[in-house]
Amino acid sequence: MKKPSMTPWSVSGDIDYNKLTKEFGAVLLDSSDADNSDLHHLIRRGFYYSHRDFNAWLNAAKSGKKVSILTGRGSSEKMHLGHLIPFVLSKAFQEKLNCPVYIPISDDEKFLVKPKLSLEEAQKFADDNILDIIALGFKPGKTFIFKDTSYPIYPLAIKTAKLISYSTAKAVFGLKPETNIGWTFYPAVQAAHILFPQFKSGKHHTLVPIGIDQDPYMRIARDIAQHSSLGFQKPATIHSKFLPGLRGSSKMSSSDEGQDVIYLSDSPSEVKNKINKYAFSGGKDTLEEHRKHGGNPDIDMSFQYLKYFFEEDDKKLAKIESDYRSGKMTTGELKKYAIDKINAFLKKHQENKKRAKSSLGKFMLKN
Amino acid sequence: MKKPSMTPWSVSGDIDYNKLTKEFGAVLLDSSDADNSDLHHLIRRGFYYSHRDFNAWLNAAKSGKKVSILTGRGSSEKMHLGHLIPFVLSKAFQEKLNCPVYIPISDDEKFLVKPKLSLEEAQKFADDNILDIIALGFKPGKTFIFKDTSYPIYPLAIKTAKLISYSTAKAVFGLKPETNIGWTFYPAVQAAHILFPQFKSGKHHTLVPIGIDQDPYMRIARDIAQHSSLGFQKPATIHSKFLPGLRGSSKMSSSDEGQDVIYLSDSPSEVKNKINKYAFSGGKDTLEEHRKHGGNPDIDMSFQYLKYFFEEDDKKLAKIESDYRSGKMTTGELKKYAIDKINAFLKKHQENKKRAKSSLGKFMLKN
Repeated sequence: MKKPSMTPWSVSGDIDYNKLTKEFGAVLLDSSDADNSDLHHLIRRGFYYSHRDFNAWLNAAKSGKKVSILTGRGSSEKMHLGHLIPFVLSKAFQEKLNCPVYIPISDDEKFLVKPKLSLEEAQKFADDNILDIIALGFKPGKTFIFKDTSYPIYPLAIKTAKLISYSTAKAVFGLKPETNIGWTFYPAVQAAHILFPQFKSGKHHTLVPIGIDQDPYMRIARDIAQHSSLGFQKPATIHSKFLPGLRGSSKMSSSDEGQDVIYLSDSPSEVKNKINKYAFSGGKDTLEEHRKHGGNPDIDMSFQYLKYFFEEDDKKLAKIESDYRSGKMTTGELKKYAIDKINAFLKKHQENKKRAKSSLGKFMLKN
Repeated sequence: MKKPSMTPWSVSGDIDYNKLTKEFGAVLLDSSDADNSDLHHLIRRGFYYSHRDFNAWLNAAKSGKKVSILTGRGSSEKMHLGHLIPFVLSKAFQEKLNCPVYIPISDDEKFLVKPKLSLEEAQKFADDNILDIIALGFKPGKTFIFKDTSYPIYPLAIKTAKLISYSTAKAVFGLKPETNIGWTFYPAVQAAHILFPQFKSGKHHTLVPIGIDQDPYMRIARDIAQHSSLGFQKPATIHSKFLPGLRGSSKMSSSDEGQDVIYLSDSPSEVKNKINKYAFSGGKDTLEEHRKHGGNPDIDMSFQYLKYFFEEDDKKLAKIESDYRSGKMTTGELKKYAIDKINAFLKKHQENKKRAKSSLGKFMLKN
């Protein structure tokens, strides 16, 4: 086991997800509960695995009360598969429950946190990332996207900032003396995001799908939500695990020269090459051994991507899993299946992204 | 001597101005230099007494180079005479040197710093204060006013924030762990104000007239101005002393139920009453003693207000000073003279303020 390390800005080592949930004071999600498991395969298959007040939110949504979803994106680079997860869930919930989705793009945070990233670069990535998000098929008129550096988030952020002391922010985020004062302010901006739907349209139930590493922001936002100067409902959250990197790292990340990452802009041959070359395999060393002893889908990245992303059909997935485990399906066959699935998804995505440009105006939130 | 205490947010005790200038690493202004003394009686009479690079700014202005003035206002209450000082100087410089004046209104700061002030109150005071500022006679088309909570200052403030560490801000402003993270961010907003004219129209000489208590902001702004990510000129500053309170406190302030303050909205009878009742007098206890030994204009608040504000004519002021010192002029006469002068000023000001509403659009900076 590699020693785990996790902040909202970096994750490494082997993560004990259940331990994190316990440490953070959240609750494990009951994926066997039909109310939950019917909603999405990301829940049914345990990728979204932990929560705070999720069922209260879901009940409110099902009983026709006003609800919303809030999920954001920090725009420091072009998007990869891992970045897409919360949007996939949010879009599915929007379809099932017909609720508004608010999407703040924190180009400010990425500029402040990354020493070498200019604001103009962060803004450019934001514009590109927004097209990727729209390409997923969110509903115009029900989906509200804004960039922190174009939308007036600051007047809201000072309202949350007044309720957050430096010592609290320091304790929750491990801020250091040398941290710049934009970064030390950012937790207030993130709290303003999380409470944004309520700032915008009054007290109601908001759900925030996030990676478990972002939970410190939720704790702060929930702590201040009910303060008399705001008068909001505590926002609910649903926590995901991380999509693993190609070579099996705990979180897909661009840091290793792209050997861990499938970008949304990757071409079919790039995907084929990456899966074949880098995707960690649960297969045996020789075909003979594989046929005899079978492979291990639990550590096989091609299988993991099918499970969490590309094979929505439970029966097909179960067959692949058992065939691979028995040795009936080879690593080459599994990789080919994954490559075809990923490329089919990316082809459609890339076409949708091209079209997204012309509908941008329907999604960007005006002041 | 009361022990002095000074931060950008509060001033008390007896201030040793020359010592502050030395401590801050600024330079005493040579008020005997005709270039300086001809500019304004606030300089000639030593009220603006300290600076950084003022003469370089003045030379640039006189030789037709691009220059600007930046001076702001924190809107936590209705304005009093003390608040008006930097605007009086800025307006006079604008007239003499035909330069643009930028005026940020930091409703955000006041909301963040004052526990009981709501954002809506701070914004309301901002709107009222702006009319007071316009009423001074600034030139439309050359004067650009904005509120931090309406104008997009945040995208500029994160550019300065990235260059300011928490430990620097803590050292310069004495921030405490319990300080809220909006307040700890505010030095970046103020730095963005000070550099605003250069953000807006490129590298040039900016002058910032401020009370000496605000100098920490200048030091931070000057430290970062030339960073490669900004590429600006170090802004110049000219420091004022504080306008004393009616009862002789070191800085006019509303904290003592208005007994120290003349508001710009005061009626003639309020002014008369306040000067007669509260204005600290340099006169002797009895008329007989006064005629015999004379009064002390140096500690007389009515005289101080004439000197720094209301009697622009040097000869008249000199005659008042010598008549009062000799005992020829009584305290009653001096107070009456001051009351008439103040009320004449306020009458005109209050009329101008009423008219200012209709010209607001010519002064407010658009995004």
